[in-house]
Formats: sequence, C-alpha cells, structure tokens
Amino acid sequence: MFKKRYSRPGTPPATLNPFPQGHGKPVLRVIEYDHDTVTETTVQSVADLPLPADDGKIRWIEMNGLGDVEALRLLGERYNLHPLALEDVLNIGQRPKFESYENHLFIVAQMIYNEPDQTMCAEQVSLFISENMLISVQEDSETDVFEPVRQRIRTGGGYIRKMNSDYLAYALIDAIVDHCFPVLEEIGEALEELEDAVLDKPSPNTVGQIHNLKRMLMQLRRFVWPERDVVSAMLHSDSPFIHEETKVFLRDLYDHTVQIMDLIEAYREVAMGLFEMYLSSVSMRTNETMRVLTVISAIFIPLTFIVGLYGMNFQDKTPDGAPAPTNMPELSWKYGYVSVISVMALVAIGQVYFFKKRKWL
Amino acid sequence: MFKKRYSRPGTPPATLNPFPQGHGKPVLRVIEYDHDTVTETTVQSVADLPLPADDGKIRWIEMNGLGDVEALRLLGERYNLHPLALEDVLNIGQRPKFESYENHLFIVAQMIYNEPDQTMCAEQVSLFISENMLISVQEDSETDVFEPVRQRIRTGGGYIRKMNSDYLAYALIDAIVDHCFPVLEEIGEALEELEDAVLDKPSPNTVGQIHNLKRMLMQLRRFVWPERDVVSAMLHSDSPFIHEETKVFLRDLYDHTVQIMDLIEAYREVAMGLFEMYLSSVSMRTNETMRVLTVISAIFIPLTFIVGLYGMNFQDKTPDGAPAPTNMPELSWKYGYVSVISVMALVAIGQVYFFKKRKWL
Amino acid sequence: MFKKRYSRPGTPPATLNPFPQGHGKPVLRVIEYDHDTVTETTVQSVADLPLPADDGKIRWIEMNGLGDVEALRLLGERYNLHPLALEDVLNIGQRPKFESYENHLFIVAQMIYNEPDQTMCAEQVSLFISENMLISVQEDSETDVFEPVRQRIRTGGGYIRKMNSDYLAYALIDAIVDHCFPVLEEIGEALEELEDAVLDKPSPNTVGQIHNLKRMLMQLRRFVWPERDVVSAMLHSDSPFIHEETKVFLRDLYDHTVQIMDLIEAYREVAMGLFEMYLSSVSMRTNETMRVLTVISAIFIPLTFIVGLYGMNFQDKTPDGAPAPTNMPELSWKYGYVSVISVMALVAIGQVYFFKKRKWL
Amino acid sequence: MFKKRYSRPGTPPATLNPFPQGHGKPVLRVIEYDHDTVTETTVQSVADLPLPADDGKIRWIEMNGLGDVEALRLLGERYNLHPLALEDVLNIGQRPKFESYENHLFIVAQMIYNEPDQTMCAEQVSLFISENMLISVQEDSETDVFEPVRQRIRTGGGYIRKMNSDYLAYALIDAIVDHCFPVLEEIGEALEELEDAVLDKPSPNTVGQIHNLKRMLMQLRRFVWPERDVVSAMLHSDSPFIHEETKVFLRDLYDHTVQIMDLIEAYREVAMGLFEMYLSSVSMRTNETMRVLTVISAIFIPLTFIVGLYGMNFQDKTPDGAPAPTNMPELSWKYGYVSVISVMALVAIGQVYFFKKRKWL
Amino acid sequence: MFKKRYSRPGTPPATLNPFPQGHGKPVLRVIEYDHDTVTETTVQSVADLPLPADDGKIRWIEMNGLGDVEALRLLGERYNLHPLALEDVLNIGQRPKFESYENHLFIVAQMIYNEPDQTMCAEQVSLFISENMLISVQEDSETDVFEPVRQRIRTGGGYIRKMNSDYLAYALIDAIVDHCFPVLEEIGEALEELEDAVLDKPSPNTVGQIHNLKRMLMQLRRFVWPERDVVSAMLHSDSPFIHEETKVFLRDLYDHTVQIMDLIEAYREVAMGLFEMYLSSVSMRTNETMRVLTVISAIFIPLTFIVGLYGMNFQDKTPDGAPAPTNMPELSWKYGYVSVISVMALVAIGQVYFFKKRKWL
Repeated sequence: MFKKRYSRPGTPPATLNPFPQGHGKPVLRVIEYDHDTVTETTVQSVADLPLPADDGKIRWIEMNGLGDVEALRLLGERYNLHPLALEDVLNIGQRPKFESYENHLFIVAQMIYNEPDQTMCAEQVSLFISENMLISVQEDSETDVFEPVRQRIRTGGGYIRKMNSDYLAYALIDAIVDHCFPVLEEIGEALEELEDAVLDKPSPNTVGQIHNLKRMLMQLRRFVWPERDVVSAMLHSDSPFIHEETKVFLRDLYDHTVQIMDLIEAYREVAMGLFEMYLSSVSMRTNETMRVLTVISAIFIPLTFIVGLYGMNFQDKTPDGAPAPTNMPELSWKYGYVSVISVMALVAIGQVYFFKKRKWL
Repeated sequence: MFKKRYSRPGTPPATLNPFPQGHGKPVLRVIEYDHDTVTETTVQSVADLPLPADDGKIRWIEMNGLGDVEALRLLGERYNLHPLALEDVLNIGQRPKFESYENHLFIVAQMIYNEPDQTMCAEQVSLFISENMLISVQEDSETDVFEPVRQRIRTGGGYIRKMNSDYLAYALIDAIVDHCFPVLEEIGEALEELEDAVLDKPSPNTVGQIHNLKRMLMQLRRFVWPERDVVSAMLHSDSPFIHEETKVFLRDLYDHTVQIMDLIEAYREVAMGLFEMYLSSVSMRTNETMRVLTVISAIFIPLTFIVGLYGMNFQDKTPDGAPAPTNMPELSWKYGYVSVISVMALVAIGQVYFFKKRKWL
Repeated sequence: MFKKRYSRPGTPPATLNPFPQGHGKPVLRVIEYDHDTVTETTVQSVADLPLPADDGKIRWIEMNGLGDVEALRLLGERYNLHPLALEDVLNIGQRPKFESYENHLFIVAQMIYNEPDQTMCAEQVSLFISENMLISVQEDSETDVFEPVRQRIRTGGGYIRKMNSDYLAYALIDAIVDHCFPVLEEIGEALEELEDAVLDKPSPNTVGQIHNLKRMLMQLRRFVWPERDVVSAMLHSDSPFIHEETKVFLRDLYDHTVQIMDLIEAYREVAMGLFEMYLSSVSMRTNETMRVLTVISAIFIPLTFIVGLYGMNFQDKTPDGAPAPTNMPELSWKYGYVSVISVMALVAIGQVYFFKKRKWL
Repeated sequence: MFKKRYSRPGTPPATLNPFPQGHGKPVLRVIEYDHDTVTETTVQSVADLPLPADDGKIRWIEMNGLGDVEALRLLGERYNLHPLALEDVLNIGQRPKFESYENHLFIVAQMIYNEPDQTMCAEQVSLFISENMLISVQEDSETDVFEPVRQRIRTGGGYIRKMNSDYLAYALIDAIVDHCFPVLEEIGEALEELEDAVLDKPSPNTVGQIHNLKRMLMQLRRFVWPERDVVSAMLHSDSPFIHEETKVFLRDLYDHTVQIMDLIEAYREVAMGLFEMYLSSVSMRTNETMRVLTVISAIFIPLTFIVGLYGMNFQDKTPDGAPAPTNMPELSWKYGYVSVISVMALVAIGQVYFFKKRKWL
Repeated sequence: MFKKRYSRPGTPPATLNPFPQGHGKPVLRVIEYDHDTVTETTVQSVADLPLPADDGKIRWIEMNGLGDVEALRLLGERYNLHPLALEDVLNIGQRPKFESYENHLFIVAQMIYNEPDQTMCAEQVSLFISENMLISVQEDSETDVFEPVRQRIRTGGGYIRKMNSDYLAYALIDAIVDHCFPVLEEIGEALEELEDAVLDKPSPNTVGQIHNLKRMLMQLRRFVWPERDVVSAMLHSDSPFIHEETKVFLRDLYDHTVQIMDLIEAYREVAMGLFEMYLSSVSMRTNETMRVLTVISAIFIPLTFIVGLYGMNFQDKTPDGAPAPTNMPELSWKYGYVSVISVMALVAIGQVYFFKKRKWL
C-alpha cells in the first residue's frame, strides 16, 4: 500500500522509465464541448488528438493506462507538457501535489475506492490544466470515478458546460475527494462492529482487524491531507488558468477535504480507543482467569494435603511388633473420618468467606 | 455519532437530495420585532414568509425540520440563498463553518444537548445572516435551545430588541455554545464517580464507561473547536452584516468557546488518567492474585509431596518372603508419624518466613 | 477542581446571577497613597468608596467576597465597569484572561496556594485597571497572597509608591505568579518521595498519589499558561493605562511565568516517568512471582506423580488367587524404595539444573 | 549510528583536528567540462588542482577521504573556503546544513546506503558551490552514489553539460536523496515480513527487529528532514550562485524529499503498529496459556481431592477392636466405586459446561 | 535537579536575598587584553575592579562564587547593572535567557558537566556584555569550562585578541554549549550498554537506569533548548554591543545548539525504545514462564489424578462379607498396572503432541 515508484537514483531528471510488466495499451478518449454541443471520440494514437483551438470549445483528453511510455512522451511533446511532470505521471504512488508550470498547471491526485472484496485501492490521476484544455492521465483504463462527470457533460445540466477547464478539473477532483465519504462510511461501520467484538469476545483476530482499519485510515490521511493542500494551492493560485468564478466551488471542495480529514481523525481516535479497550479487556480477562484458578487451587490444595495426610501408611506397630501408638492414632478413632471431613469443610468455608470478603467471588 | 450525510460522489455541486425516510414537514415561524413591537406568526408555506423590508424591523425566520426539500429550495429562491449553502444545510453532521457569500453570511453550528437518558445529541443549525434578516434552519422541529432567546425578544429586556440581526445570530450561537457547560458538568460528575469506581472495584464495565465519556468529549471537541473558528471568523469578518457594536459580545462569546475547549481538554486528560489508573489497578490485582496462589501452592505442594511419599505401598518383604528392610522403614518407626508432621511443620514455617521476608505476606 | 461557574444558557449577556449559598458579605477596603502619604480605610458600603480624582493619588479598592451581587452591580455602576466583565467576576473558575475595555483594563487571574492539609486551592482574582485607580475583587475575604504588597505600600520602600496603578497591578499579579514556586516545590518534594516508593514497594496507593500530583500539575498548567498570555498581552498592549516604565517589570514577570511553565512541564515528565516505572515494576514483580510458582510446581508436581504412582493399590493376585506378577512388582523389590527416592532426586536435580541454566533461579 | 565528531570544548572556532586513526590519503579528482568537451584527471596534490578560470568551463573538484587534514587546509586556502565550513567538513556525523558564505555556498549532506549485509550506512558529503566551480568532499574514497552523475557528464546527455555548477550540485544532492528510495523499499519489505511474523509466532527476536527498523527510520528522518530544509534554503536563496533555471529542478528535488519524509512517517506508524500488535499478541497468548492451565487445573484438582479422599486409611475398627462404622463406610458399599466415578464424572461435566458457557473452551 | 531558587512571593522585584548556608567568598579576577598585551590579576574587593576605559582594551571581570550578596550589589552599582538582572544572578537554576537592558546585555546560561562519579551537574553562569567589557558571574569558584578560553587569550592565537567583548561572550557560551557533546557521548555509551542488558537480562535495575538517562536528557534539553533561543536572540539583536563580524561565529554556535538538540532528541527516542523493549521483554518472559508451568501442570495433573484413582481403598467386600465386584475390579486384573501405565503414557504423549502443535514446546 505504501509503495511508491521511483526513478533509479542518479538518472537524469525527467527520465521516463517504462513499466516492466507492460500495463496494457492506454485508451485515448476526447470529449469536446461548449454551451450547445458535445462530441465524444476514442482515438487510436496520440497524433490523432485535437490541438487546442480558439473556438470556444473545452477539450478534455483522457489517457487511461500507463503501459505505453512512448505515447506518453508524444503526448507531452504535442501539448508542451513539462518533462518533470511527465516523470511524476509515471512514478505512481505519489503524494498528491500541485505544480504551476509555464504552459499549464499540473495536479496529481489519488483516487481511492473499495474493491468489491473490501480492500482499499488507490489509483493515481494526473491532470494538466490549460486554457480550454484538460488532459487527465490515469494509471488504469478500467475503473474510475469520473463516469458521473462525463454524464453531466453529456446531459448538460448544472454549470459544467458553461465553464472553463478549471471547473472541469474541479469536478474531477471533487469526484475523487467525495469518493472518500463512502469509503469512510464503510470503515465507520466496520469500527462499530469491532466495538461490539472487543467487548464480547476479544480475539487476536480483532487486533488484526483494528490494525487493518488503522492502516486504511492512515493511507486515506496520507492522500487526503495533501489533496487539501492541492485545493488550497489552486484556490490561492494566481495562474490565469484558474478563473474567479470557479473559486466559490473550490472553496466548497476545500471544505469537503476538511470534513473528510475531520472524520478520518475522529475514526483514528476511535480505532485507538478500541485498541486500548482490547488491551484492557485482555488483561482483565487474564486477571479473571487467574482468580478462578487461584480460588479453586486455594480451596482444594490444602484439602488435598489433608486427605493425602491420612493416606499415609504409618504402622501402628514397629517391625518387632511393639505398638507405636503415636503413629496416626486418628485413623482408628471412632469419629476420625467425620472429624476430618468437618475440618475440611471448615477450611473450605473459611476460604470461601475470605475470597468473598476480597470480592474475588 | 460520527455520521455525516453527503451527496453521492460525482453529483453536481449544490444538489439537494431529499431524506429517504421523510423527516416530517418543516415548521415555519416568523418573529418580527423592533424597539417597540414584536409579532410572532407561524406560516404554512414558504410563499407566505415576509420579504425583507426597509422598515427598521428585524425579521427572524425559522424553518425547523428538513423533511421538505422543495420548501428549502423555495426558501433559497425567495431569499437568494447560495445553492452551495443550501446543500450544506441538508448534509447534516457537518463540521461547523462560516462562509461569507455575496448576499448573506452562512453559519453552520451544532447544537449539543443531553437527552433525558443521558445520551448526547447533536443537532445541526444553519444560520443565514443579512441586514435586518436572520434565517435559521434546524434539523428537527421538536427540541431546541433557543426558547430563552425568543423569550428575551418577547419581553424586550437587555440589548436584543435594540440591535440588528447579527446580534440575534450572536444570541443564538451563544445559547448553543453555553449549552455545552451543563453537558460538560454532567461529564465531570460522571468522571468523578468513575474515579471512585476505578480505585474500589475496577470492572470491564468501568473501561466501557471511561471509553464512552472519552468519546463524548471527542465529539464535543470536534464541534466546539470549529465553532471557535466560526466566532473568530465573524469577529474578524469585514462583512457589512456584522456591526461594530456586536463585536464586544462576539469577543465574549469567543472567550466562552475557549473556556469550553479548556474544560474539554482538562476532562480528556482526566479520562486518560483514569484509564491509566484502571490498567495499573488491573495489573496490580493480577499480581496480588498471583501472589496468593503462589504462596498457597508453594506451602502445600511440597507438603503434599511428603504425605504422598508415605502413602506409597512398598512392601517390607519381597514376594518370596525375604525381608526388604530398606523399603520405607520410617513407616514402622515408633515416632515416624510425629517426625513427618514435624518436618512438614518446619517446611511450612520456613516458607512463611521466606515469603514474609520477600514482603509477599 | 475543574469546576467552572456559568450563566444558564440563553440568559442575556452580562447577567449577574447571585450565589445560592450566600458567600458572606464582601469586605471593602481602600488604600490611597502617593509618594508621601498612605491611608488605609475599610468602608461599609459601595457608596462610601472614593471616586477617582486628579490629585496624584493612587487608589486601590479591594472588594473581597462575592456574596453580595447587588454591591458588585453598584461597584460596576460607580466606576463604569463593563457589564460583561462583571459577569466574569462572578463566574469563578475562569481561565485567566486580559480584556481591554474603553474605560479600563480587565484581568482575571487565579491565585493558587496550598492549604495547610496540602490540598491545592485556586481563588479567582479580578482586577480593573484605570489611570490612578485599581479595583481588585477576590472570591473570598479570608486568605490572600497580597499582604506583602500592602506592607510594601505602607513602608514605602522600592518602586511601588512612585509608580501608577499599572505597577500595582503588576505587583499583585507578580505575587500571584510567584506563589506557584512554593507550591511547585512541595510537588517536587512529593515526587522525590514517590520515586523511592515506586522502586521499593509499589502499591495501588502509589498510583493514586502519582495521579494526584499529575492532576495538580495539570491544574497549575491550566492556570499559569493563560496567565503568561495575560502578561504578554499587558506587555504588548497599547492601552494608555500601561506605562512604558512598568514594561521592564512586566518582562521580568513574563519570564517568571515561563520559568514556572518550564518547571511544570519538567515535573509532568517526571510524574509520567514514575507511572511508567510503576507499571514496569508491577509487571516485573508478577513475572518474579510467576517464576517462583513455576519452579516450585515444576519440581514437585512430577515428584508427586511418582509417589502417587506407588501409592496405587494394584494386587499381586487376581480375585481367583492366581498371581499377577506384572502388577507393580517394584513395590516388593528389595531396593524399590531406595530406587524411587533416587529417581526422584535425579528428577529434582535435573529440574534445578534446567532452571539455573535459564537463569530462573 | 548517532555518533557525531566534535572539536574539544573550548578550542578556537575553525580548528581542524586530524583523525587519530588516519582515514587514508584522500583521492583528488577533477572533472572539467563545457558543452563540447570533458576532461577527467586524478591529481596527486592540492597544488595541482586547477584554479577557477573564466573560460566557460565548469570544474568539479572531488576530494574523497578525510585522512589528510593538511591537504584539506591547503584546499581551503587555494579556493578561499571559509574556515568554519572546513571544520564542519571534518566533524562528520553532522546534521545536513546550508550556509551561505561570502565566496561560496556550503552544503553538508548525508549519503545513505545499505551495505551488502543490510546495515545502513551514512557518509558525510560536503559541497562548496561557486560560479563555475563545485568542490565536493567525501568521508571516504571507496563507495559513493555519484557514479551515474559522472557518467551523465561523460556522455553529455540531458541538461548537465549545459548548465552551471549549481545544477551539478543539484544532481549530486538528487542522487543522495533519491538513494533513500531503495533503502526505504528494503525497510518496507522487512516490515511486511515482520507483520506476518508478529501474527504467526511472536518472539523476543521480533521486537529486536522492529526496534532495529524503527531506529533505521529514525536515522533516515534525522538526515532527510534537514536535507529538505537545505533544498528549501537553496530554492529561496538569493545567492548569485543559484541560477533561476535550476530552480525548477530544485523544486522537483524538494518534492522528492517531501515524498521520502512522507514514506518514512508512514513506515514509522506501521512499525509502531507492529509493536502494539506484538504486545497485544503476547498478552493474548499469556491469557490463552492461562486459560488452558486454569481449565485443566479446575477440572482435575477437585477430582484429585476426591480420589485422595478415598485413599485415606481410616479403620473401621478402633484399636480395641470395637467397630467404628462412621469411618468411611462408603469404601465397602456395594456400588461405592461406581458412585464415586459417577460423582466425579458429573463434577467434570459441570466444569466443562461452566467453561463452555464462559467461552473459555 | 529541577530545583530553582526564587524570591519569596510578594517581595519587591530586584530583591537580593543571600544564600543561607554561605556559598564561600567570591573570587574576583580581571583579564585585560588588547592585540598586544594581556594582564591577569586577582583582586580582593569589588572596589579594586577596573572601570571601563576607552583605551582599546577589553576587560573580562570574573566573579566566581555567590556567597557575598553585598559584593554582588556593589558590582551592580559600580558597573550600572540592572537590579532585575542581579536578582536573576542569585536565583540559580534559571532557564537560560537573554535580556537587553539599556547599558548592557544580560545572558544567563547553564554550564553542564559530568562529575567524576558520573552525576550530571549544572552551574549557572551570568554574563553582562557592554562595549569593551564583559562581566561573568559563576555559582561556584571551583570548576568551570572556561580555562581553554583563558588560555587562548593568554597565547593570543586565533581571533580572540582581535575582537570585542561580544566575541569573548561568544567564546564562553561556545565552551558551555560544546561541553554538552562529551556529556552526550557518555549518555550514548550508557544507552548502548543498556540495550544489551535489556535484551540479555532485564532487571528492575535496568528500568531505573533507563529512567535516569531519560531524566538527564530531559535536563539537558531543558537547558539547551533556551540556550538556542539565547544565541538566536543575540544573532538577531540590534544592540550596538553585538558587532557584525561576530555574527558568523554566532551562526556557527547556533548550529551547534541545533546539532545538540538533534542528538538529545535522537537519544530520547532511543531511551523510549529501550523502555518499550524492556516492557515487551518482561511480558514475553512472563508468557514463557507461564507456558512452562502450564505444560508441566497439564501433563502431570491428569496423570496424578489417575494414580490417585487407583490409590483409593474401595473394598471388594461389603462389611457383611458379601462380594462387591463392582468396586475397583481393575486393581486385581492381571494386566491392570500395565494398562494404567499405558493409558497414562498415551495421555502424556497426546498432551505433548497437542502442545507441539500449538508451538508451546
């Protein structure tokens, strides 16, 4: 989870090193839209991608999949993307960042979602923002959280068709950030279930699950915290690509990141509290187990000694037949057995009384 | 407790999504007042609500209950409320916030009170402040902490009838913030009771209660901390809706939030200390139980061995009738039994002495 | 200890709510002094208190005791004290604060001293500073730490008779702050004694005492930390009531608060360290007790099994009188007993050797 | 690992004290390059090193090995290096720092690499940057991470031959910083292995390894954190030796240090979590062991008492032959044995049921 | 160690209260020097001390020992030292501070050194800096760390004879600060030794030693942290007594304080880690001891029950002589003994197998 890809130390900056396993060919998609029209096309090669034009249309170019380094290099050339930014696109597992280059803004974000089997996934999304143009690059061509945004462009409701590429970038980051809410909700439910488990039947398994949730929260925090800084940097950027009318939305988005951080911190404290309760529950149980053992032992060990005492085989005669009346005369007393039973009962009652007084029973 | 409502990721900003279960129809109330007059009315629909007028009257419009999204939308339209603010009104469980829009200020606060059964509740209150007009929206139409404020308007004592809508907002937030004091007082009393419980008879139950109080304090902190920021933002806002003469009251209110945070932190430290005492108390008890077990075992186990020894059935004759004088001659010594008893007494006394010296007894 | 008095939520600001139990009538005292003269009088009612006059005299008005709310209200009226400040005077248990009102400065401080029975007490002191006039209000009319200051005014040594009311305020706060030093010294001595107790004979009592000292330090910190801010605010205030020549003394006082905070933090770390030592000492003791039990059990339990073995009553004849020579022939071996004793001795020696090697003995 | 060399207290500043053990003679190397040419020479003495010249060539002078203090002094004289900087060169184990002297910039960095046997090493590298000239001094002449940079100069690809000495310094620091990535990757893998070990079979060894990794992370943090500050200081320096066109690379480098700090913090939290899991795993195991002991003891100790009871040797006759019918009549009951067995079976079943109910079995 | 001397609360500021026990008469020493000459004299009374003169000579006046308050008062009068500063000179155990008075700068530092018996000592040093004049006051006249500085003045090497009193102050503080390095080195070595002890044979003694080192580090931090601020304040002071050419040395000194803080923090983390390892080591040992006990008990307790079973004395006849064949017929089976031995062997083997599977053996 905490893996980060990096260029071999000492390689020149802006080196694009290909993935060894081949991530699959990237899918290239273009959505062009203005107030009135939308066209959506899938192209085969970078050379077919439209260049920015001053025709009032917004162009959103998607490259999904990092399997073809050459295509990425061509994309960079065609749109004048900064080589250092391209290197960051490839080095997945990055901390989210905002960088302002001469020709464009560059944003790295981490899209977080739960797989159907409840493992948390993070996929890196890189955005290049310039006037009327947004280029997004995703790690993977299969799943993303952008479909509702595409739908909004197609149907043309709301603000999205009336605003520039910075609003589109906002909409994408908003989709990424808001996707943390359902992830957090699942974590919250898991924490509630664990709370019952801790109180009812703590098991080593419980600790593993608490630990797991803590790590998920840690991961979320690692990605959301800098995303807040990214939004804040966009908000306070004086770049011409961020227009004044988008800022009210960015402020709202900033507020969402704060709300998420707040939930994450609250859940982290809950998880910490669960761990403490687990520990105290285990040590309380050890204590109780101990007490049961001690009470049973303390009652029966002396009794066992007494019955062992009268199981000794001392003879009432010496080998030469002389009587040895000091040898266990109790054994042939008329009420010997009854007396011993009574003594033992008294001992037992005394112990029980003692333990009751100490509140061990 | 840490639940937050959110719009589905990817939906356009400012979407108002209705509550599935239907929160009940909102209650609409209007209080209009100036120096000399007060009128209080309950209206049926948003269309009946008065528009702001330049007649020197302050209008406080209350919408209590979020069950009717359409009404909320109409309210927003009628009073020109910002759509992003309206979305926040619906997404209950928000972190308190202060936002300055063009036509109005927007404040989210969390009203905290203890239910009769001692569970802590938080209810979201949203305020829209503009010149001579205050709109408040509550989650729920049943309970609130604003009745004393309404009473002050009715009776006309103090400053409230002489000042503008910002003072009214101050009075409402002051009522919300001050309501933390009795909640904290109850927590403080519970902590004191727990302190005795920890020292006298720690039980797993105790941990659960400490944990519960810690979580209540956490929740309080989560809501009061940003409320302090809200008050600070109001205090330093250059909005025309916050008048200079209100600021001395806002400063006083700010001081109250600081005092509450201070108490919360103090109680958190006390709760942490209680948990530590609980842990140490449990481990001390384990130690003591252990010592009782060890002392009893250490005294009786060797004695039991000795009596077992003389319970062995070795014969003083081999099967062919030859004498086997080495086989347990002690058993037929004249003072065998007495000697064994004496040896055992010596062993027991030795052990007791040893444990006394180690301060285990 | 962490109690704070508060006005009922929703009451108008600046409400003066009387103490239910009646704190006793306040004592009113006036000290008027200039370079050459001092007069000290005790007056019966607020109406008899002198008004500020431009005669070069400094007037220190003391109201000790909060039992008469009406007197306080009159005091506020006579000297034009801000109503919000008067409310703070009554709400004892306040966090120390500095507030600059139009006609005067307002300071809340907490006077801390140890009762003869070693419990720590905090008493709220409120100061109103204006040109040539200082009004001080204390919770209680019995004990305070100001007597040396009064003495200095009477004898006229040092700076006090030559300077204005701000210097008098400095002298009072200095007396309050410096009184933390002996309190801390007592805590330091108690910590040293506890350190020996933790190493020698940890008991649940020890934890209680550590906990108690930690809470006293917490309380001290809660009051000294904001007092530092108060002094800093006075130092950087541009109020005309704080004169330039007092600032060198305020700087010195600020330094004292820093030194006290520093000692408090150091003691807190020591107390924390003591608690850790206590915990580790208890778990080490459990371990040792455990080891004694294990060694004794491990040695005697197998031996007891062996002697039990030869206490079985297997017959060397079947019921029909046929010999059963496999049934415990050892019992009638000539050296059976000796052999068993030897075997047991070997077992015991082996165990002792094993435990010695493991360093358990 | 945390050793730092220092001058004897009280020695004058800028004293160069030689290494007692003699670090071996330093190796002096010069690389001179411009757009078109590269020459690489190894010289014997400092006097043979080239002086800076205004011929458009960049000169990189390497002194690897600190064994010859005199040579270092001469180097300082020849190139006008500040004496305080030279002292820092010798006092290895320094916290990375950036200092701007009149004639040059001075940077201390720590090169971190894993030895083949997985121990982490830190080697101090000092850089003196002036126009067209870079002097680097390493602790050791054997290994370094700069070979790829030298190679880049030789082959002339990328930016390195076209830029000034500040870019060369950037390239060296970049190589040092990026070398933390593989080190961190190894730590990450070790942590993953440990996680399995903690869950499967915690041993004291495990703690030692966690502790070791924590210390490596601590060491990394100690060196990377100030390196971030070094890069930041370079970035914001107004020194003429840092050119505007290098700053985009320094920003990228700064981002790398942030990414590394981020990974270090994440790994530290993981290590902390592992330790907590280890502790809870051990206490859970103690609890379980305890439970097994308690269950077995609780079942068999009462049974052993019962069988001991009927092993007592009470006689059914008094010594004078009179019958003593109260003495253990059960022993000669017809179904005595069967009854006792049944009672014991019932006791055992009862206990098992009790333990099942308590979920101890 | 954390003792601080203070004036009785309420005494006027700048009161000089004498030491009760009499610290011994102070030793007064004067060193006068310029580029070419040095004279060193010991004088008997404050009146014999040289006044500052405009003859280009630097005068260093040392008063070592605080036993004579009157002499200190005279010193203050003669050189116009601020009374508040003089009070600080006497109140030993101060937090290091820097104060700028009209006629001079005032610095308090804490000189830390290890006594031969390894206890850490702190001695307060106060410095008064004015043009051409430095007055230093030490707690004690016996040991100090300034001898190398005096030697440098005598021999005249380096910068010291060419610069002003501010450089001399720098040299003294540098000697004080650098003296922390050997102290830290000893702590580092002690920590390394403890690390082995914790892993090999943890004892309560070990905790005491860790605790002791932690406290020494705490103490060091308490004194070095504010000394860093002192140096920083000197560096950024605009006092005419700090000359520009000294600042490069102060920057170097500042860097030394940072390096020391860095080492202190690193050692504190190591000490914390050691404590954690100790705790986990103890609980692991408890666990192991437990396991040994449980395995032995679990194997032998059932066996002991079985042998006890066949030690019961049930009769095969009822008292009236009728056969009771259900009473322990096993005892007279031909292979009874062998069978029982076999059953017991099977039970033991089963248990060993079970414990092996659970990895307890």
